[in-house]
Amino acid sequence: MQDRFPAMNARAIAKRIALGVILLGPQTLLASVPGSQAHEDPVSQIALPLVIILLVAKLGGELAVRVGQPAVLGELLGGVLVGNLSLLGFHSIDGWRTNPSLDLLAGLGVLILLFEVGLESTVGQMLKVGFSSLLVATLGVITPFLLGWGVGAWLLPGHSIYVHVFLGATLTATSVGITARVLNDLRQSQSAAARIILGAAVIDDVLGLVVLAVVSGMIAAANGGRSMTSVDILIMIAKAVGFLFGSLFLGVLWSRRLFNLASRLRAHGVLLATGLSFCFLLSWISGQIGLAPIVGAFAAGLILENVHYRDFTDRGEHGLEDLIHPISSFLVPVFFVVMGLRTDLRSFLQPGVFGLAIALTLAAILGKQACSLGVLGKGVDRLTVGLGMIPRGEVGLIFANVGLALSFGGKPIIDGSTFSAVVVMVMITTMATPPALKWSLARKHVLQGTGR
Amino acid sequence: MQDRFPAMNARAIAKRIALGVILLGPQTLLASVPGSQAHEDPVSQIALPLVIILLVAKLGGELAVRVGQPAVLGELLGGVLVGNLSLLGFHSIDGWRTNPSLDLLAGLGVLILLFEVGLESTVGQMLKVGFSSLLVATLGVITPFLLGWGVGAWLLPGHSIYVHVFLGATLTATSVGITARVLNDLRQSQSAAARIILGAAVIDDVLGLVVLAVVSGMIAAANGGRSMTSVDILIMIAKAVGFLFGSLFLGVLWSRRLFNLASRLRAHGVLLATGLSFCFLLSWISGQIGLAPIVGAFAAGLILENVHYRDFTDRGEHGLEDLIHPISSFLVPVFFVVMGLRTDLRSFLQPGVFGLAIALTLAAILGKQACSLGVLGKGVDRLTVGLGMIPRGEVGLIFANVGLALSFGGKPIIDGSTFSAVVVMVMITTMATPPALKWSLARKHVLQGTGR
Repeated sequence: MQDRFPAMNARAIAKRIALGVILLGPQTLLASVPGSQAHEDPVSQIALPLVIILLVAKLGGELAVRVGQPAVLGELLGGVLVGNLSLLGFHSIDGWRTNPSLDLLAGLGVLILLFEVGLESTVGQMLKVGFSSLLVATLGVITPFLLGWGVGAWLLPGHSIYVHVFLGATLTATSVGITARVLNDLRQSQSAAARIILGAAVIDDVLGLVVLAVVSGMIAAANGGRSMTSVDILIMIAKAVGFLFGSLFLGVLWSRRLFNLASRLRAHGVLLATGLSFCFLLSWISGQIGLAPIVGAFAAGLILENVHYRDFTDRGEHGLEDLIHPISSFLVPVFFVVMGLRTDLRSFLQPGVFGLAIALTLAAILGKQACSLGVLGKGVDRLTVGLGMIPRGEVGLIFANVGLALSFGGKPIIDGSTFSAVVVMVMITTMATPPALKWSLARKHVLQGTGR
Repeated sequence: MQDRFPAMNARAIAKRIALGVILLGPQTLLASVPGSQAHEDPVSQIALPLVIILLVAKLGGELAVRVGQPAVLGELLGGVLVGNLSLLGFHSIDGWRTNPSLDLLAGLGVLILLFEVGLESTVGQMLKVGFSSLLVATLGVITPFLLGWGVGAWLLPGHSIYVHVFLGATLTATSVGITARVLNDLRQSQSAAARIILGAAVIDDVLGLVVLAVVSGMIAAANGGRSMTSVDILIMIAKAVGFLFGSLFLGVLWSRRLFNLASRLRAHGVLLATGLSFCFLLSWISGQIGLAPIVGAFAAGLILENVHYRDFTDRGEHGLEDLIHPISSFLVPVFFVVMGLRTDLRSFLQPGVFGLAIALTLAAILGKQACSLGVLGKGVDRLTVGLGMIPRGEVGLIFANVGLALSFGGKPIIDGSTFSAVVVMVMITTMATPPALKWSLARKHVLQGTGR
């Protein structure tokens, strides 16, 4: 991830290179004519990886379920195992980590997962826990931010204050995919605790976006560049909040009419196509204003309710959940195994990484336990909420990537070993959450030993 | 599609460039920090195209069904419409034609379609019509090959004989996707005619591969390069035939045991994962030996039968068809709309293209009517078989691409305007097949007006 090209044109260069790859496509046939590769095809290149990923997912999931853990833990660990075969000198799968096709399918997988989880709740149910979610999210952003800043100041005393602040920022945003999946595995996604966590994770994403923008703006300003003004920040917050409330409000208002209209079509598969289009549309808008696309997918799921598509189910078609389910059981495991694949165990062993990594991880885990103070009302398991907020995933890595590219005083804000420490933090929080949540939920209820 | 890079290293270059794109990925974040694109994500880039593609598919399909045509025709024409908005000065969607993410999803779509169609038949049922399929395929390769050669000799008298022969070769292989989809739309995919067509299309693919190899080998030899020996060709044929019979034989022998084993797993979604893995595995092998991946997917579908996964359905899980169906209704329309998108109407207007294009198209359509002579036994609608073999798709374009890269006497075998003529032939045969098949089937049966 070195800075090989001038930063300003990176986008234009990437575009041109992508075009080059496409134009090259047909020419690569040359290498194999006359002969055996006449049918070059994007699918045949990931067919084998997909076979192995699906097998790893099911075998890993099976083992996890047999020892009483959520299936997702097995998928992650199976991915880690396969992804680190290179340590044993087996390098054929090294390319999978950065394969754009797998990346796309994994990305669709987590989108579909959040859409599916969203379908299980309604906007009304979410608003009921809205204030708790807001408090949980706010506490869960502030505490890890301060703790991460402290860890930076303590362990990296030679670096500038911007490095410390930035390190704090990487700890703010919860990665809701893992928790959503565990709650799904354990059939708990309709509990009050689940709704508080999911709502908080959405708000969290907005707050994380604000923190990242403010911190990067500060650094750019300190470095002599144009800084963000308070107006810029307010506009950004307004856009994000506007999207969340606007989409929920307009969505609830219009979605029933949309599905009514769609139900007049006689073509096959209209309900699924309408539902998926709605999910992709909100994901796209969400991405456009700088939020994670999964926030839009979750909002889309919340908005859609059974009653909206009763015209379809009344005439004997499957409901949306039934239709989404096979798609998610294909794509969701791809996401988790690929996450595992990308876990490079060598990160743990890099010199200078270990201490910082452990301290950051502790800051990340303990910081989110402040969330439990934000839960209002009785009967909600506060510990579960705190544990459910632990995972840091893509968002933390995205922040760290931004830090790699920012610099202050000629040095990058995040250097190689700090980046590795962030990666280790992401790994541990991801892997620790499934068993921790499972344990916490089992304290309260006697869960069936089977999972899903 | 000019030859911009030395041919020998094309593969290596493409690999390196792809890596460059991946490494650039995080850096592109720079362009947007501080600010609004912090969550760069492969999914958010195709979320909007997917929304529009799904809407176009459903609206186009609806219109087609309302005028009594198969839905696929509407999806194709909808794609053509959107893809040619650039003629009206609207260029935002030009990039979709070559978008690798859409390409991947479309490729998965046609794979799933052939798997699904394969699931509806068994190996035994296919073997019953095997001899008919073999005859149909052989006639359907020889006649268009000779007619195409003739068209070349007649309209391109100034070009070498290799150009004429190569033009014949581009007409040989049927693109089974369209026909499979039309038969599916009209609920005819279990008829004898359907089985003969599908079987012939598989054999066709093997024969087309042989023709391409022989013709390219001849040209390479004439050009002073190493030629293919008869032994090379025999080895290639043996590999292809060995795959087809080997996979069917071993598949039938082992698949039941495989699913028995899988049914012992308690994790969720095992049946779907096992079925898809089987499909992807055979597609991969098929691609490795130079056949189209869809041949493997179809073989996988043929091999799997309900009885293999009775352990799953007996305990109340959905059958494999039910699980595949939502995945196919998401991805299959993507394939057909993207095919439409790639249809550049300006090809029709290029100087020197029109006459050759029409002659080639007639050769392609009339040539395949010889197939009807290959149908043995009574009660099978011969005209339907002939019409069902008409579409030429990816395979014809792949051949033409190979021709772009081959040269004889310093000139490319296929030049720009000849390539455009092949593209026009592919378009017309693709668009003409759905209404033609629908009409032919309606002659025999009174079909319900609704389609699927």
